[in-house]
Amino acid sequence: VIELAAVGTPALVVHGPTLDRNLATMAAARPGSRCRPHVKAHKTTELARRQHAIGHAGFTAATTREVLGLAVVGLGEDLLLANETIDGRRLRAMADCGARVTIAVDSVETIDAAADHGIREVLIDVDVGLPRGGCDPVVAGALADRAGRAGLEVRGVMGYEGHVSLYTDRAQRAAATAAAMEVLHGAHAAVGGDVVSAGATVTYDLNHVATEIQAGSYALMDTAFAPLVPEFAPAMWIESTVISVSPEHAVVDAGLKALGMDHGPPTIDGAQVLIVSDEHITFRPDEAVRVGDRVRVWPAHVDPTVAYHEWMHLTDGEEVLERWPVDLRGW
Amino acid sequence: VIELAAVGTPALVVHGPTLDRNLATMAAARPGSRCRPHVKAHKTTELARRQHAIGHAGFTAATTREVLGLAVVGLGEDLLLANETIDGRRLRAMADCGARVTIAVDSVETIDAAADHGIREVLIDVDVGLPRGGCDPVVAGALADRAGRAGLEVRGVMGYEGHVSLYTDRAQRAAATAAAMEVLHGAHAAVGGDVVSAGATVTYDLNHVATEIQAGSYALMDTAFAPLVPEFAPAMWIESTVISVSPEHAVVDAGLKALGMDHGPPTIDGAQVLIVSDEHITFRPDEAVRVGDRVRVWPAHVDPTVAYHEWMHLTDGEEVLERWPVDLRGW
Repeated sequence: VIELAAVGTPALVVHGPTLDRNLATMAAARPGSRCRPHVKAHKTTELARRQHAIGHAGFTAATTREVLGLAVVGLGEDLLLANETIDGRRLRAMADCGARVTIAVDSVETIDAAADHGIREVLIDVDVGLPRGGCDPVVAGALADRAGRAGLEVRGVMGYEGHVSLYTDRAQRAAATAAAMEVLHGAHAAVGGDVVSAGATVTYDLNHVATEIQAGSYALMDTAFAPLVPEFAPAMWIESTVISVSPEHAVVDAGLKALGMDHGPPTIDGAQVLIVSDEHITFRPDEAVRVGDRVRVWPAHVDPTVAYHEWMHLTDGEEVLERWPVDLRGW
Repeated sequence: VIELAAVGTPALVVHGPTLDRNLATMAAARPGSRCRPHVKAHKTTELARRQHAIGHAGFTAATTREVLGLAVVGLGEDLLLANETIDGRRLRAMADCGARVTIAVDSVETIDAAADHGIREVLIDVDVGLPRGGCDPVVAGALADRAGRAGLEVRGVMGYEGHVSLYTDRAQRAAATAAAMEVLHGAHAAVGGDVVSAGATVTYDLNHVATEIQAGSYALMDTAFAPLVPEFAPAMWIESTVISVSPEHAVVDAGLKALGMDHGPPTIDGAQVLIVSDEHITFRPDEAVRVGDRVRVWPAHVDPTVAYHEWMHLTDGEEVLERWPVDLRGW
């Protein structure tokens, strides 16, 4: 038995019971294929195995590395690369990896690249309001025809309504989701197929058009999204150690290289975070701390935080239950 | 010969001639032991080798992994862990790694931990105005005595005036540096020893007290610090590929997981960066781009950007000259 207190810091730590509750909550609301967990949020095949065990056989990925990593551990029943690529070497690797791989396409170029490198199945990626990938909805049908002529099987459409996370108010978020899905519904009518893939943890119970939800954050959750979907609790923190104490502040050994910072600084319970630098957080604790004390640092954004770490330590709060490699990092 | 255009994206790319100019500029201003390059900025032993070849035999590190990684490749003539730790396993590993290792201490706890685990040499880390590690200057002498009684050799003091990077005006920065170094000078008088270690790229030619400068950013530079020290040019970008184009914007395949975001979003020449998400940047180019075009993304902060990448591709702009593992990542 390894005590959590014996793990070197900074360390990525996941509270196992909270993780399992989050997974169960989603599996109850969207069982089986109605949720296609997005592995970009955790990049860990052992965590994907738990999502598979609770009933979700299909996975969403953002990178080729994620697709190939899932395939090699036997989780390749139905993988979706919800992203565009024209990299022939990577497309060929996914086509030949032994898994069922479906790829998002949103242009003639991405369709031709997929067809040229052995990909068999695609979704037409539609812009539903988030300014990122996705075709103009009016050309979705024409792109599907083009894909069909290129020999690709078009399974349906996808459209990511990520912009609705701006609405912390649930009713506003529901309305924005409905508007986005009306666009996707129209595109689906022109494209055909069985799959309407969309969403996000923050719309998992608001999206009534999608046949499947690409939810990622729900498993580990973070301080930015938790207020929007409080039924999923933050399950992941950075375990850190106090290395310096002064009358005004204290310092722990976790910093920018252990934390995604795009959603702002992390949170420390019972303390005010003052400065985050490469390998330090300076904070003002409500009650005095001492050199050597352990401190839990809660990240604002799970995804880019996980991507900095080699290992995920599963714990019950006291002991390390399992140690999982974060094996889907990189590209 | 591998063309840069054949490297999969996103990729960390370093322009070799610019890197070498930056190294030469520093080596001319602060030759030999007057600069102790900080490897936290690049985390790459092959780059440290270039710094060694141009005359800097000593290195600064922020983590145990950096110290051990330098030692194992034979760059351990004089390594400074410019950071506190009480981790006995790590202290012992550094003590036994075969390199000359000096460690920063700023408290009784860190002194005792170092002495208990075989460390032989320390610097007294002094708070010179940045609210982070470092002891109150008035206790520096007493801590040095304590370290001596514990059997440690006290080589001198260190104090990091990182707060002066807030002053973009050179005269203001010089004044703030002088004020911080007056504090360090006073502490040094109480501590003794040959070493006064301080600074930073942004004070390398303003700090007249330090016997050695812990400069990190100067080698690769970034968009946040370049305006302060324009004699060092940004040498590192993220090579990315356009994967989606719409009338209003375009999207490349580099995002939060390829970029440190704490100093703000990255820059793309001839374009306005609109949104940075996990694996995408949405931007508005001044001139039309096409799917497949390569785009250089300039990070605002080098250090947490490098920490996301497995490989650093050295280039002359056209070909890949060398491919270096970013082998000092983690803790």
